Amino acid sequence: MATARTYLDHNATTPMRSEARAAMLTALERCGAPSSIHGDGRAMRKLVETARHDVAALVGAPARNVVFCSSATEANNLALCLDWQRGRAAPLGRAAVSAVEHASVLSGGRIPADRLALLPVDARGMVDLAGASALLERWRAEGIAGLVSVMLANNETGVLQPVAALAERVHAAGGILHCDAAQAAGKIPLDIRDLGVDLITISSHKLGGPLGAGALVMASEALHLPNPLLRGGGQERGWRAGTENVPAIAGFGAAAAAAARDLTADAERCRALLAVLEEGVRAIAPEAVIFGEGAPRLPNTLCFAEPGIAAETALIALDLEGISVSSGSACSSGKVKVSHVLTAMGVPPDLAACALRVSLGRETLAEEVEFFVAVWTRLRKSLHDRKQHRAA
Amino acid sequence: MATARTYLDHNATTPMRSEARAAMLTALERCGAPSSIHGDGRAMRKLVETARHDVAALVGAPARNVVFCSSATEANNLALCLDWQRGRAAPLGRAAVSAVEHASVLSGGRIPADRLALLPVDARGMVDLAGASALLERWRAEGIAGLVSVMLANNETGVLQPVAALAERVHAAGGILHCDAAQAAGKIPLDIRDLGVDLITISSHKLGGPLGAGALVMASEALHLPNPLLRGGGQERGWRAGTENVPAIAGFGAAAAAAARDLTADAERCRALLAVLEEGVRAIAPEAVIFGEGAPRLPNTLCFAEPGIAAETALIALDLEGISVSSGSACSSGKVKVSHVLTAMGVPPDLAACALRVSLGRETLAEEVEFFVAVWTRLRKSLHDRKQHRAA
Repeated sequence: MATARTYLDHNATTPMRSEARAAMLTALERCGAPSSIHGDGRAMRKLVETARHDVAALVGAPARNVVFCSSATEANNLALCLDWQRGRAAPLGRAAVSAVEHASVLSGGRIPADRLALLPVDARGMVDLAGASALLERWRAEGIAGLVSVMLANNETGVLQPVAALAERVHAAGGILHCDAAQAAGKIPLDIRDLGVDLITISSHKLGGPLGAGALVMASEALHLPNPLLRGGGQERGWRAGTENVPAIAGFGAAAAAAARDLTADAERCRALLAVLEEGVRAIAPEAVIFGEGAPRLPNTLCFAEPGIAAETALIALDLEGISVSSGSACSSGKVKVSHVLTAMGVPPDLAACALRVSLGRETLAEEVEFFVAVWTRLRKSLHDRKQHRAA
Repeated sequence: MATARTYLDHNATTPMRSEARAAMLTALERCGAPSSIHGDGRAMRKLVETARHDVAALVGAPARNVVFCSSATEANNLALCLDWQRGRAAPLGRAAVSAVEHASVLSGGRIPADRLALLPVDARGMVDLAGASALLERWRAEGIAGLVSVMLANNETGVLQPVAALAERVHAAGGILHCDAAQAAGKIPLDIRDLGVDLITISSHKLGGPLGAGALVMASEALHLPNPLLRGGGQERGWRAGTENVPAIAGFGAAAAAAARDLTADAERCRALLAVLEEGVRAIAPEAVIFGEGAPRLPNTLCFAEPGIAAETALIALDLEGISVSSGSACSSGKVKVSHVLTAMGVPPDLAACALRVSLGRETLAEEVEFFVAVWTRLRKSLHDRKQHRAA
């Protein structure tokens, strides 16, 4: 980081790993399109294929099932359509996505609105398995196979979804399961076979790789999509047209390899710091609400609200102190609006408007967490006081 | 370049300019999502907006009309659809693209095949204006407004299209004109107002910026597309979802500024070297065919064929000598296939299969051109000899 700021917004984007930077800089030294058959092209091709191997290894998939995209948003847009074909299996007639998905799943796909259902979540933010089973059963009764998309970890709350349990139910009903693991990859163990999903999305810059790369990974080569999203060029075996962004892909691969290697240690460090953070927030104000409490969660994410302190005000006050956090999903136009995730969890709008997301990274220091707690102790008091003063 | 090879494939991709590299490395030092409202996010936002200004300036458009994409392929895919709206103007009912467009225009769009017409080119590779006018006239007679897409410079032959003349005709017929200027930008002067086009595509890595960025630029803010290609996130004012690839965009901007500054000098240097190359190729074999001869062409591109010497064989032989060139468009799966561009120009398949593309860059040295000519002199003789030997 070039600044002395306290960056606690790692779910938005996280600094590049040194391995990723090195791989990217090496690729930036070269020139050539990977599709070219001459030596300059082949050298670039080699970088792409090495990265493909490393990204595949992170999720336990065969390398050739990795399709590199420009982002997880693009990968989700690519995945979310009803045109998937699987050998002689029935064509897809419906789709269902959880109500807490990222916007690129909720509204990024190529699925007519009248064929798209929302899977509700409980108060903890977890997909209701019974509700999902009932929907799958209705589809099966009507002879319809469906595409289901449920994320592995929520970007705002860090809540983990029961993806493996869902996979069994989706497959029993003849459907296909896509899992947006953009926020989970590199933070918790992840194996496409253990999860039992058919398609998985990963993001480079969320796991310490550069911006500009993401991947859609398929569990099986039997899956086929006749009409991909970006067309007009045979790159990525026809799955994704456009000259490959080799430096970003090379950095993505190196980050994936490093993330796989450091996973346990990084998670343990984050978990310990998160416990300190959570304890601090509770000690300051026992009335603070921690979202996703009681659900399994990512080791780095705390989403909480202190009633009466608007997130927008708190964000600006923290920013002036040099602390970067987020109010729910930052992945949008910069507007602060009530989170669809918290709304789906039944959080009242006035409380949801107070939600702050603090997300730690593998390089976050104990001092930074302590600094946040100290600043928050002071700020929340002064924000409360101002409010009471105004009301008086 | 890390290697001592002779890289003459600059239309595939060209080395990054030092200004682009510096801007990219600066951006890589920072962490933050440009949509975040905290200081780390705002610093990234500033880099994106600076780049938007520089890219807009290269083509004479207002900065806010630039939509950053991950590539020119993506920008072309975004542009090629019939959903464009323009105030109270009639909706689009048909599209026509030239037969020599890049694959991302020819087959990358979201236009039903029965509404897409091909505009033929003449033997020089130039769009037939009379034919285009006749089509536009037919549309107008039927009350149909159309989208037309014609590139500024062809990637294989370097032939320049009569875009400004076409723009008058398209607008007289109430249509919209898109121009893929990926191969022209940075090589010849380019002004969206002078050209009179409505939409223009540019590529970062073709003009000395990094891979991973491209732009669709609109001449007017009156143009609106209700259903963009990548959705689910408010980035790029809703035109393109996904966290902005800030380092690539920053590099793109710096490359665009440098390209604008160096345009005349770079073009003059290339043009002089190209004359030496062309003279060399003709002197070696008077029977060599230069494609696009007689048409206005880019100052850096020579596409030629020597009858009887297959491009695939020649490419490999040149590669073994450390020279990288291409056989027509390399922007694909690595397969050598007969060029659709040459086919559209009426070149017989056996001659088209001999087409080599040599494309120069702003750093190409006179010694490199001389080396190519010397190697080609030797190789083409030995390839001819082998062939005669086999035939004997």
